[in-house]
Amino acid sequence: MTDKARLDEVLAQLDAGQDDALARLLDFLRIPSVSTDPAYRGDVRKAAEWLQGELQQLGFEARVHDTTGHPMVVAHSPRGNARSLLFYGHYDVQPVDPLELWDRPPFEPELQTGDNGKVIRGRGASDDKGQLMTFVEAFRAWKAVHGSLPTDLILLFEGEEESGSPSLRPFLREHADELRASLAMICDTGLYSDGRPAITTQLRGLVGEEVVIRAADRDLHSGMFGGLAANPIMILAQALGALKDSDGRVTLPGFYDGVNDLDDSLARDWAALGFDATDFLSKVGLSQPIGEKGRTSLEMVWNRPTAEINGIAGGYAGDGFKTVLPAEARAKVSFRLTGKQDSEKIRAAFREHIRAHVPEDCSVEFHEHGGGPASVMDISDPAFALAKQALTDEWEREAAYIGSGGSIPIAGDFKQILDMDSMLIGFGRDDDRIHSPNEKYDVESFQKGARSWARILASLR
Amino acid sequence: MTDKARLDEVLAQLDAGQDDALARLLDFLRIPSVSTDPAYRGDVRKAAEWLQGELQQLGFEARVHDTTGHPMVVAHSPRGNARSLLFYGHYDVQPVDPLELWDRPPFEPELQTGDNGKVIRGRGASDDKGQLMTFVEAFRAWKAVHGSLPTDLILLFEGEEESGSPSLRPFLREHADELRASLAMICDTGLYSDGRPAITTQLRGLVGEEVVIRAADRDLHSGMFGGLAANPIMILAQALGALKDSDGRVTLPGFYDGVNDLDDSLARDWAALGFDATDFLSKVGLSQPIGEKGRTSLEMVWNRPTAEINGIAGGYAGDGFKTVLPAEARAKVSFRLTGKQDSEKIRAAFREHIRAHVPEDCSVEFHEHGGGPASVMDISDPAFALAKQALTDEWEREAAYIGSGGSIPIAGDFKQILDMDSMLIGFGRDDDRIHSPNEKYDVESFQKGARSWARILASLR
Repeated sequence: MTDKARLDEVLAQLDAGQDDALARLLDFLRIPSVSTDPAYRGDVRKAAEWLQGELQQLGFEARVHDTTGHPMVVAHSPRGNARSLLFYGHYDVQPVDPLELWDRPPFEPELQTGDNGKVIRGRGASDDKGQLMTFVEAFRAWKAVHGSLPTDLILLFEGEEESGSPSLRPFLREHADELRASLAMICDTGLYSDGRPAITTQLRGLVGEEVVIRAADRDLHSGMFGGLAANPIMILAQALGALKDSDGRVTLPGFYDGVNDLDDSLARDWAALGFDATDFLSKVGLSQPIGEKGRTSLEMVWNRPTAEINGIAGGYAGDGFKTVLPAEARAKVSFRLTGKQDSEKIRAAFREHIRAHVPEDCSVEFHEHGGGPASVMDISDPAFALAKQALTDEWEREAAYIGSGGSIPIAGDFKQILDMDSMLIGFGRDDDRIHSPNEKYDVESFQKGARSWARILASLR
Repeated sequence: MTDKARLDEVLAQLDAGQDDALARLLDFLRIPSVSTDPAYRGDVRKAAEWLQGELQQLGFEARVHDTTGHPMVVAHSPRGNARSLLFYGHYDVQPVDPLELWDRPPFEPELQTGDNGKVIRGRGASDDKGQLMTFVEAFRAWKAVHGSLPTDLILLFEGEEESGSPSLRPFLREHADELRASLAMICDTGLYSDGRPAITTQLRGLVGEEVVIRAADRDLHSGMFGGLAANPIMILAQALGALKDSDGRVTLPGFYDGVNDLDDSLARDWAALGFDATDFLSKVGLSQPIGEKGRTSLEMVWNRPTAEINGIAGGYAGDGFKTVLPAEARAKVSFRLTGKQDSEKIRAAFREHIRAHVPEDCSVEFHEHGGGPASVMDISDPAFALAKQALTDEWEREAAYIGSGGSIPIAGDFKQILDMDSMLIGFGRDDDRIHSPNEKYDVESFQKGARSWARILASLR
């Protein structure tokens, strides 16, 4: 039987198994594997063990490795001599608050009818449980048809991606020989637009920081002390507000070192994508690109670094009013990096900037929340062209090379620690509401995603 | 019997009744009358009714008046022809959070041994239940000795002072004839220093505002949208940070209109107080006056206006990290006013300042949380000299005329609505931790306070 015929059988097998595949995904989504909240520690492990069970059924030799944080799931197909591929995904999910904005309990997923056909609604449906199950299902169908798995598959599923991956780099170093493959496939990205597949060839890096400013040793009456004593919220507001100038540029010294403008060919490709920022923003109730002056909207999200305040808290913010000078104020800040920006230099510059705003009699404390450089892929590897063709065949639309504003530090870690290139292919959509209430994943993404992986396996094995 | 002898009897009666008086205060403190939190609505009323009961026992004709908010307690002594005095206090208290910083349940008060003798520990001990009970106990002793109350006493106890007194002004207008007296006595202030009594002759005014900035209609992934979409926390930080310049001056246009420098005599008196800012701040773990450049520390808190951020919240501030662009951010801001600053003009200037920072596709919402002008008393009224002497006699130290950085809008309201001057006398201390965890009131303040009122009544009736 020809490879073509074999592939058609695998695709038919995937179509026949759709309902079972969806049922398995819903089971997986019912596990509240929130890695940032210690209260869910047991559930994170449960999700890891659920995956281990699935993979063992497929003939993988699958293990749950303990770390100082959440477990790593590593699985191997029986070794052969073909090109080895590592597939990476993460089984942890974001917190669900604000819970009251969810239409249904976030960990009681269900199939719903959305604007573009059926969707899977629930935390993790898109980021990343639904996405990683696309290649698990592809392997399942492959095994059913071929009786064996494509050789030299390595699977790595992480449980700390949403909390800065503290254990990942040590784990990669410790298991380098076991994990090194000729190419890593990462499934944490999206379609360029509905129905248009894409390979993400550059990702922004990330620096995550938490800052706590402490002033008086207790909350103070703003009448008795206001105007005389330090107010940590005002100190924090002034320090954070000064992170960006009126042109939307980050003011930290040296921040733009290593940031590169687009090369002409990619600039042309991106221009050809016809990205409409107003339309993109209108989907979330906005209309104006608020970014660096003189940059296109795609540059703002894909090729320019930024600073964002992700959370802030201090004083009394409940019902009514409390005229207090609080003892402390805190904020969570993240920087998105591009090109060759040095995440640790930027972390240091941020801390220096904050310290410069804090009076002598106040204290400041910093907590690191992950960080990693931007990643730019080498698309001269023939595997990129083969995968691009496989995606074009499945979706019947020309696949695009795109960038991503998001951060998938693992791609940089694979390069640095394992000298392994990555290919980023995923089937999420802009309206998936990842990290937000009512997250969803289109059933079409799930099903065509699995079929796409089957085609890619057939091309790359 | 001479007035002097009568007064001595009243003072002796107060001394003999100390334990009972303390027991009554502890009963009062056990009622969690938090006016800013709707959950305590019933308890606020309970506190009003508790007062009504106490006053009726003393022969007052006492009523609990409903308002659109919390009740007003009004009591009258039998009418006579002497000078009429209105005594004002408030029976509501501040919220107790952060609860974990309390050494004991805030509404289970007890007597403890503090640095300077016994203290009453619990929410409201100083602000304002303990203070208002000083004159209730003075009346009780007076009645016991004289068989009747000093004539023409009017008592007004409010239940909304800690939540901006929304019902107060309408109530004063509606009951103007019933409440108008020749002088109002307000018991919401403090000693100048341990053992040194004071009459507060000027108070800062207040403008309380809450601002909510809304951007996207949901929380956004900061990778997908960061650098392109508006971040309401950054908008808020930049707008609030710009409220003060590097000299500590408020930047709102026209903010300083009506602010006056001290006249020479008061400037001399205040200098003579020998206020030590470093010592004052060291009691709360600070050391540096952070205020307007070129001003003395007493000016900063008593005679200069200021802007403070009392609370801020937005995005994810819980455990871990969430790379989100939040849909909204909010802050509570208050301005302390001096001289003849116009609170409504300042409220309008603040709103204009914020609006100027909010992009077209975002929205901003404001909530008013009270406001009132500063008050400056006319100390040429002979009653001030008489009260000053009475305080000097009781405490055996020269009473001082001082200012207060706090806001007691009622003094301004009495003047505006009832054309009634106020005299502010209280016995609180800087370390009472009002509005903070572990609030306390010294037993000495409670007892000498009641004795002080007995002396003042003897002088002014």
